[in-house]
Amino acid sequence: MTDRFSFTLDATDGKARTGRIDTPRGTIRTPAFMPVGTAATVKAMLPESVRATGADILLGNTYHLMLRPGAERIARLGGLHRFMNWDRPILTDSGGFQVMSLAGLRKLTEEGVTFASHIDGSKHMLSPETSMEIQRLLGSDIVMCFDECPALPADKQTVAASMRMSMRWAQRSRDAFGDRPGHALFGIMQGGVTRELREESAEALKAIGFDGYAIGGLAVGEGQEAMFGVLDYAPGCLPADKPRYLMGVGKPDDIVGAVQRGVDMMDCVLPSRSGRTGQAWTRRGQLNIKNARHADDPRPLDADCSCPACTGYSRAYLHHVFRAQEMISGMLLTWHNLHYFQELMAGLRAAIAAGMLDDFVADFHAQRAGGDIPPL
Amino acid sequence: MTDRFSFTLDATDGKARTGRIDTPRGTIRTPAFMPVGTAATVKAMLPESVRATGADILLGNTYHLMLRPGAERIARLGGLHRFMNWDRPILTDSGGFQVMSLAGLRKLTEEGVTFASHIDGSKHMLSPETSMEIQRLLGSDIVMCFDECPALPADKQTVAASMRMSMRWAQRSRDAFGDRPGHALFGIMQGGVTRELREESAEALKAIGFDGYAIGGLAVGEGQEAMFGVLDYAPGCLPADKPRYLMGVGKPDDIVGAVQRGVDMMDCVLPSRSGRTGQAWTRRGQLNIKNARHADDPRPLDADCSCPACTGYSRAYLHHVFRAQEMISGMLLTWHNLHYFQELMAGLRAAIAAGMLDDFVADFHAQRAGGDIPPL
Repeated sequence: MTDRFSFTLDATDGKARTGRIDTPRGTIRTPAFMPVGTAATVKAMLPESVRATGADILLGNTYHLMLRPGAERIARLGGLHRFMNWDRPILTDSGGFQVMSLAGLRKLTEEGVTFASHIDGSKHMLSPETSMEIQRLLGSDIVMCFDECPALPADKQTVAASMRMSMRWAQRSRDAFGDRPGHALFGIMQGGVTRELREESAEALKAIGFDGYAIGGLAVGEGQEAMFGVLDYAPGCLPADKPRYLMGVGKPDDIVGAVQRGVDMMDCVLPSRSGRTGQAWTRRGQLNIKNARHADDPRPLDADCSCPACTGYSRAYLHHVFRAQEMISGMLLTWHNLHYFQELMAGLRAAIAAGMLDDFVADFHAQRAGGDIPPL
Repeated sequence: MTDRFSFTLDATDGKARTGRIDTPRGTIRTPAFMPVGTAATVKAMLPESVRATGADILLGNTYHLMLRPGAERIARLGGLHRFMNWDRPILTDSGGFQVMSLAGLRKLTEEGVTFASHIDGSKHMLSPETSMEIQRLLGSDIVMCFDECPALPADKQTVAASMRMSMRWAQRSRDAFGDRPGHALFGIMQGGVTRELREESAEALKAIGFDGYAIGGLAVGEGQEAMFGVLDYAPGCLPADKPRYLMGVGKPDDIVGAVQRGVDMMDCVLPSRSGRTGQAWTRRGQLNIKNARHADDPRPLDADCSCPACTGYSRAYLHHVFRAQEMISGMLLTWHNLHYFQELMAGLRAAIAAGMLDDFVADFHAQRAGGDIPPL
């Protein structure tokens, strides 16, 4: 254990990197996938089960937690780790993205955003300073700068103005964060899909100086090709000796492509949200458990998967409990999906360490192209 | 392990008994509380978690399973144990009670009951013979006779006629069940709250001969006093060398009173259903986690409880996740409730074995009378 936050690069393969982030609360193996625990729970999972899938770190949502149960309350109760019974690292977002997508009656100024809670309509304010304070109250290990994401599509001028305000907010976030040994502050690159804006944003962030750098404003509907287009150059604009975090990504093939392009950390609600709607992700692609063809199928989701859903249950059972709207359906499918995502990350890390990422990626695509084995 | 079904009485204390039921799938310690796994899942729990609470046996509902996913399908998939990933004993009810309380378009004759599924309106028939066949297809370890429960309130004549038909159905169930080593068939005493009808029913069942005897038609709204009134004599009408099962009971104080009166087995949805609606059962009584007074309370539900909800989480957290409608709320509260019920059974068994049941019961009531410790 360490009392400091540090990033160690162990190996590279092309642009891809593997290493580890050490924090006082434990080590994060990179590339890392972070399950999302929005409201102090990864939905349908106990934290020990999340850990059992191989997760080293969770993400918590500042916007949700500040509204319910409230950051001061969580602080009084000993912080978010103790509150949700997860003693390993937690990254919190800044609330900037959610406030623009979920809250009502938003008013955006240079100072920050005033808004109405989507839960009870109560009035709140988020700014770089209040976001830093809320994330401090939560006890977050990795704190994100407060930034602003323009609604897409937006013209270049709008994106540029938004990015520049986010960079001013990044400086205010840095100033408000102060010196907190063992805790990290990450800057967030913006600039949409325009290279010169991305480069300008990267330079602004590097001039301020952060413990890690996120790539924001992607995975918001621009499509994989446009996203990969940005990722072809964006990670290279950021310091090589700091972790690079791609926010809100993604599907397994998004993850693989991002890792190939030099991304170290990602988060997404996809595996848990899909699990609750009957979607299973496997090495062979997606499977919709509510489909009638699974009703009599004695096989597991994936015969080679060691998760509890695959070792204990048939597709027929998973189909039945989904149809019967039983909670065990979401519990088992979420577990499977998180397990699969973590297995994918472990495979990527091992492949990079062995200098065999190209082979791993070729296998990954070949297995998916093979598709699910036919129904009985 | 044994290849036969057998009941061994280890100790008595007053009318209360403790012992064990041995089956090829494992031993059931009595008095036993059976969690209800209606649709092939104890709601909000994985089966290994149900086992971890101390449960030796689960109950499955024939009515639900025959309609969805269907008994033939479960048989093709290897039986209910394999389907739901529970390799210990399972008791299935006969479908008689649920068909009268849930199904539509019921038509009751001497032959049996025709009805419409509450799920999709499809037409079905249950009789002693079809119920035995369905429970055989499910692979149930303890099969219940198909019986009929009159809707209450009912006059004595109606109750008597219904009971006598149930006794004819008990004979047909016995004949249809045949000889199935390792599997047990239980008869069900009926007769409402009228002692002479209960005695007549017991005599009819004993004349047929069963592996165990249930007391049916109670816990249907008659109140604890009337139920205990029947239990003051009904267990004594049944053979002492066979297990006695009180169906559908109950609250902790119902369980304690039933055990004092000579009952060996019980089942109830209460701990799991309560868990999903925010009710926690503890040694000190009930606690409604949605109450605002828990919002800042750092204490566990019960500081002396070793379940995951009590060892990992504050009341404040449980309150938060209930309010936020997170699945972990039902998962943790159900686990706690099932754990508490099984701890209660373990306490009753140990007290009977030690000849100290009166002290145990006095403590049980004293703790509850003390009530929950005050809010902060």
